[in-house]
Amino acid sequence: YAPTRCAAAQTSAEQGVLPPCHHHEAVHDPQLVPCTCPLYSCPWEGHLEVVVSHLRQTHCINILQGAEIVFLATDMHLPAPTDWIIMHSCLGHQFLLVLRKQEKYEGHPQFFATMMLIGTPTQADNFTYRLELNRNQRRLKWEATPRSVLECVDSVISDGDCLVLNTSLAQLFSDNGSLAIGIAITTSKVHNAEAEM
Amino acid sequence: YAPTRCAAAQTSAEQGVLPPCHHHEAVHDPQLVPCTCPLYSCPWEGHLEVVVSHLRQTHCINILQGAEIVFLATDMHLPAPTDWIIMHSCLGHQFLLVLRKQEKYEGHPQFFATMMLIGTPTQADNFTYRLELNRNQRRLKWEATPRSVLECVDSVISDGDCLVLNTSLAQLFSDNGSLAIGIAITTSKVHNAEAEM
Repeated sequence: YAPTRCAAAQTSAEQGVLPPCHHHEAVHDPQLVPCTCPLYSCPWEGHLEVVVSHLRQTHCINILQGAEIVFLATDMHLPAPTDWIIMHSCLGHQFLLVLRKQEKYEGHPQFFATMMLIGTPTQADNFTYRLELNRNQRRLKWEATPRSVLECVDSVISDGDCLVLNTSLAQLFSDNGSLAIGIAITTSKVHNAEAEM
Repeated sequence: YAPTRCAAAQTSAEQGVLPPCHHHEAVHDPQLVPCTCPLYSCPWEGHLEVVVSHLRQTHCINILQGAEIVFLATDMHLPAPTDWIIMHSCLGHQFLLVLRKQEKYEGHPQFFATMMLIGTPTQADNFTYRLELNRNQRRLKWEATPRSVLECVDSVISDGDCLVLNTSLAQLFSDNGSLAIGIAITTSKVHNAEAEM
C-alpha cells in the first residue's frame, strides 16, 4: 500500500478544465516527446528515455516496483475533475496509471482508470494490464492492452475504453475514502510478439 | 451459446416505463411471492417453488444448465428501456440473469447486469456469481453475491451495484450486435455458510 496522490491533482481541479491533448501537435523532432503528465499543460519535451525522470522530478509522481502492486488512491471525495497518477515499474518498463474523476454527465461524476506505457505503441502491444477492485464481497477486474503515452489519455477516457466506475460502486469498493486498486502487468501471448516482427 | 432474448423485452420498451417494484407490498401471505419477472406488472403470485415454472410458461424465459454458461444477448441496439432475461440452473438452484439497457442520464443509455437467486436472501448469501465479457483483447469481470428475487431488481440497478457498461464499451465487447456474457456460479466460502447457522 502506498498513498501516492500528488498535490498536482488539485491544480487540475482549480483550473476547472483538463489540459488539452497537444501531444502530437507539439512534437516537431520525432525523437522528442512532450511531457506525458495529464495533470498539466507542461511545456517540457524530451526523449522518451527521460520522461520518467521528468515525471518524478517535476511532477512529484511516485513510482512503485513489482509485478503486482496495490495503488491506494486517497480522498476519492475530491470534486471532479481530479486525477490520481502513479508510475509502475515492471518487466523492464515503466507504466503510468491514470485514475480520473470526471463529470461526463453533469452532476454525476464517474471514475475512469487506465494504464499507459511510457514507450511506443508497438511496445505497448506486448503487454496486458489488469486493474482489480476487491471489497465488500464484490470484485471487479478490467484487463486490456495498455496504450502508449504517445497516444492521448483524454481520448481513451472520453471513449470509455477503460475501467469505469460510477460513484456508488466506487463507494462500495472504497475504505474510508480511499480506493485500493490492484495492478498487474503481464506480457501478452507469443503470437502478439510474433505479429510485431 | 443460446440466443434467448424473450419477445417480452419489447413490451417493456413499448410501455416506455419499467414496471414499478411492487414485490413487498403485494405479498400478503408470507408463503406467496409475486411474479419475479421484471418485464411485466404481472398479477400472478405463488409459492417460491413454482416461480420457475411460471417464468418459463407465462413469460417464455429460457433456462440454461451448467456451472459455467454463456448467455448471448442479441439486438443490443434496441432502444432503452429493454431487458434481456435468462434463467440459469446450477448447484441445485435457479438464478435469474437480468441485463437491462436504461437511460439513467438522458441520451446516454447504459447496460446493467445482475443475477438474482430464485430463493430467499439467506439462501442467496451462500453463492457468488461471476459475469465475464471477453473480446477485442479486453476482459471485464464482475463478481458479487446474488440478490434474492424477493428483493427488487430495480433498486439493485438504480444503485448501480451490478456490472455497468457504457455504450462504447458494450460495442467493444459485442460481436455483430450481440453480447456474449459468461456466467459462473460458485458456493461462497465456508465461513459464509457457518455465519448463517
